[in-house]
Amino acid sequence: MPVNPSAPIEITAFDWVPDFAKGLVRDIRARWALEEAGLPYAERLFDARRRRPAEYFSEQPFGQVPAFRDGDVSMFESGAIVLHVAEGSAALMPQDADGRARALCWLFAALNNVEPLVMELATVDVFARGEDWATLRRPSLVAAIEAKLGCVSDALGPKAHLAGRFTVADIVMTTVLRGLRHTDLVSRIDNLAAYVARCEARPAFQRALADQLAAFEPQPSVQ
Amino acid sequence: MPVNPSAPIEITAFDWVPDFAKGLVRDIRARWALEEAGLPYAERLFDARRRRPAEYFSEQPFGQVPAFRDGDVSMFESGAIVLHVAEGSAALMPQDADGRARALCWLFAALNNVEPLVMELATVDVFARGEDWATLRRPSLVAAIEAKLGCVSDALGPKAHLAGRFTVADIVMTTVLRGLRHTDLVSRIDNLAAYVARCEARPAFQRALADQLAAFEPQPSVQ
Repeated sequence: MPVNPSAPIEITAFDWVPDFAKGLVRDIRARWALEEAGLPYAERLFDARRRRPAEYFSEQPFGQVPAFRDGDVSMFESGAIVLHVAEGSAALMPQDADGRARALCWLFAALNNVEPLVMELATVDVFARGEDWATLRRPSLVAAIEAKLGCVSDALGPKAHLAGRFTVADIVMTTVLRGLRHTDLVSRIDNLAAYVARCEARPAFQRALADQLAAFEPQPSVQ
Repeated sequence: MPVNPSAPIEITAFDWVPDFAKGLVRDIRARWALEEAGLPYAERLFDARRRRPAEYFSEQPFGQVPAFRDGDVSMFESGAIVLHVAEGSAALMPQDADGRARALCWLFAALNNVEPLVMELATVDVFARGEDWATLRRPSLVAAIEAKLGCVSDALGPKAHLAGRFTVADIVMTTVLRGLRHTDLVSRIDNLAAYVARCEARPAFQRALADQLAAFEPQPSVQ
């Protein structure tokens, strides 16, 4: 689905971010879920260098992207948005109780159990890079991430996806693990590396990524 | 609802944790949600000092508590568990699309936007207390938490609850903010302090807290 300015679904995203963030900004989750569900969407873009307009905080209390709206609801938090999309799409959420439970468990595991450590490493390696505390903290944080990824790897085993089939949980876990792409923490765990590559190879992800990146390109000026 | 060993719902929890963790372990979320929903539950307890049995990792891939099972599903991750309980209880989840969306947004905001910083402060103040990096990191982390709580406070405003009425999101946000109880970060923001006090005053929370704490008391030995 190409981004479509007249679509009834709209997400917010950025038209400028620093290079390290390109392909990682959390609107990628909303874009990917909408692609898998076959839903076109419009985008409303902000410049990450500038504070968001005051009125945006009534949509997104933290001023972050993405926010989401469709004909029914207005939402914030990438996890909530992709769950909302998944609830309307069998492509993202198993329809049986057990499958749905598996997908929910892994969705929350990615967001609340794995991502906090990945975010902390982003602080250490990017936002606070070179600060004394960051240098001193890094080894123990890396050890914590290794232990966490070991649990995910053990649970995944030889399976292709976390919840028995591709679900919304794989969208979130893949995008969480992509936050470690500047390290070898994922790439040296064979089944996790293959898992990320498998999920990233999906046409819906590739379109979502291309559309996030396209928003960072200078737009032709309108005469 | 008292804990009932013959109930069809079972959660896992600890029968020993260090003092600083008492009242904060994440099974409090499952207990509280079940109390609000009026569902009795049994508990299966582990000693936090010992590694969980190997077979437990097939239920809970990280070896953490709580895990949950009822007649239909087996689940892990406190966020997934309370959402599952909420989906069966109008006491926890509004039944209209907009109310449900609000509750989901704040559920994920608590878990993925606020709690990661609260967890990082627990590392700094408890697990790595006295390490050089923790001392150096603390001021910038506290500033990040202050900014985050400012956004939550602004969004809450004079309202009693985050999503227009009490919902599952308040269970999670309250338990996240309780993780700052060793600081004055919440207590010096009037509406957030009142919000936490209001949610903690609910009889369901009081029962959940009492039952978590009761599990840490030495049990009379069975002759």
